[in-house]
Amino acid sequence: MFLFKKSKDNTYSSFLRRIIGGKPSNIDLYYLAMRHTSAAKEKREGFVESNERLEYLGDAVLGLIVAEYLFNKYPFKDEGFLTEVRSRIVNRENLNQLAKKIGLEEIIQYNGHLKGNKQSFKSIYGDALEALVGAVYLDKGHQFTKSFILKKLIIPHVDIDMIISTDTNFKSRVIEWSQKENKPLTFEVVELDGQKHFKKFEAKIFVGKKEISVGHGLSKKKAEQDAAEKTCQKLNI
Amino acid sequence: MFLFKKSKDNTYSSFLRRIIGGKPSNIDLYYLAMRHTSAAKEKREGFVESNERLEYLGDAVLGLIVAEYLFNKYPFKDEGFLTEVRSRIVNRENLNQLAKKIGLEEIIQYNGHLKGNKQSFKSIYGDALEALVGAVYLDKGHQFTKSFILKKLIIPHVDIDMIISTDTNFKSRVIEWSQKENKPLTFEVVELDGQKHFKKFEAKIFVGKKEISVGHGLSKKKAEQDAAEKTCQKLNI
Repeated sequence: MFLFKKSKDNTYSSFLRRIIGGKPSNIDLYYLAMRHTSAAKEKREGFVESNERLEYLGDAVLGLIVAEYLFNKYPFKDEGFLTEVRSRIVNRENLNQLAKKIGLEEIIQYNGHLKGNKQSFKSIYGDALEALVGAVYLDKGHQFTKSFILKKLIIPHVDIDMIISTDTNFKSRVIEWSQKENKPLTFEVVELDGQKHFKKFEAKIFVGKKEISVGHGLSKKKAEQDAAEKTCQKLNI
Repeated sequence: MFLFKKSKDNTYSSFLRRIIGGKPSNIDLYYLAMRHTSAAKEKREGFVESNERLEYLGDAVLGLIVAEYLFNKYPFKDEGFLTEVRSRIVNRENLNQLAKKIGLEEIIQYNGHLKGNKQSFKSIYGDALEALVGAVYLDKGHQFTKSFILKKLIIPHVDIDMIISTDTNFKSRVIEWSQKENKPLTFEVVELDGQKHFKKFEAKIFVGKKEISVGHGLSKKKAEQDAAEKTCQKLNI
């Protein structure tokens, strides 16, 4: 039994080593990171242990490392640009794809019944990737994690220029969808209370009379983009 | 002139040393962190340098350090709890108060005209505090910043038990307001598409027929809290 566990751990460890770029020390953290809540175990009365706590931590780690990377890469871009690009890099869809690219599919544990529920199922890869980042941070510290995120995830797999140049795609994606589905679509943009130098805009998107999303930005275009992105997420466009 | 600048820098440096708990190395970063966009200077054509980029970075740093602190402090609490407590610690109102407590008021640069605009003015302290965190992170690195945030900000100035125990206050604050103002108030809560173990709720708050805010949570109560908190922010209650 011991041997079996040890040999399983060794295989797992080699697999992870390729993914994170270094030898994992506390292997149990990684097993936990790959355990979706549908396959969770009750640890204490009422406390079920899954990868969700690690996902919470990893989300914050990833947020900081990507924020810092963009801050240094674009010294003359304002915070509106940086915030926007960051949110596109770490959005659920991108993280799902990234998780699959590095092979997490092979080691994620989940309950097979989940496949029937598209909404819950579609984010398990991105969630697991965030949890992995959380595990690496606890196991190997800040510097190692920074290097893992940049050298193993962002630089080889994320095309930032492409992400920036597809700037206007959300709005057109919503418009295309509305035409295809024959739904009446309205964009409503208002300038929020502000001074000359601090104009802020709020955009709302309606399908028929129903408000679907609200977005904000430092220009009309950005507010519309923000609202359109949220509409895409909400309506699964 | 040089002497004057040097003596000014020394005073500034001593002041900052007390605030951050160590000697600043790159003093210009801190001057920048304290420069609100209303007092910004144009650095390159079209690029105005203010503390907003540092605020963007500091926001991510603060988010991670507080996330990690709560993760370790509450090993048996789920990510819903951790996310909620964190967002209360780093909300604008709390950060404004924190900034004043540590004395940032004395060194923030802004354009006096701003005082007339309540909306923009009320967040400059919290924004500057985030920018300071960003400056410390660039100047002194991750470990130092972690120690600054925990030992100089969170532990001495933030009463986390109080923050947790005032759990239900937002909803009652909204109700009190509606009674005082004699406005018809409606809470609407629906269960979102989910499985047995992944119930998610959405709460909407209406004043009259107008939807004011939408909140989400893993229980009805949490969704209502979230929506009520947003209503408080929006209506300045």
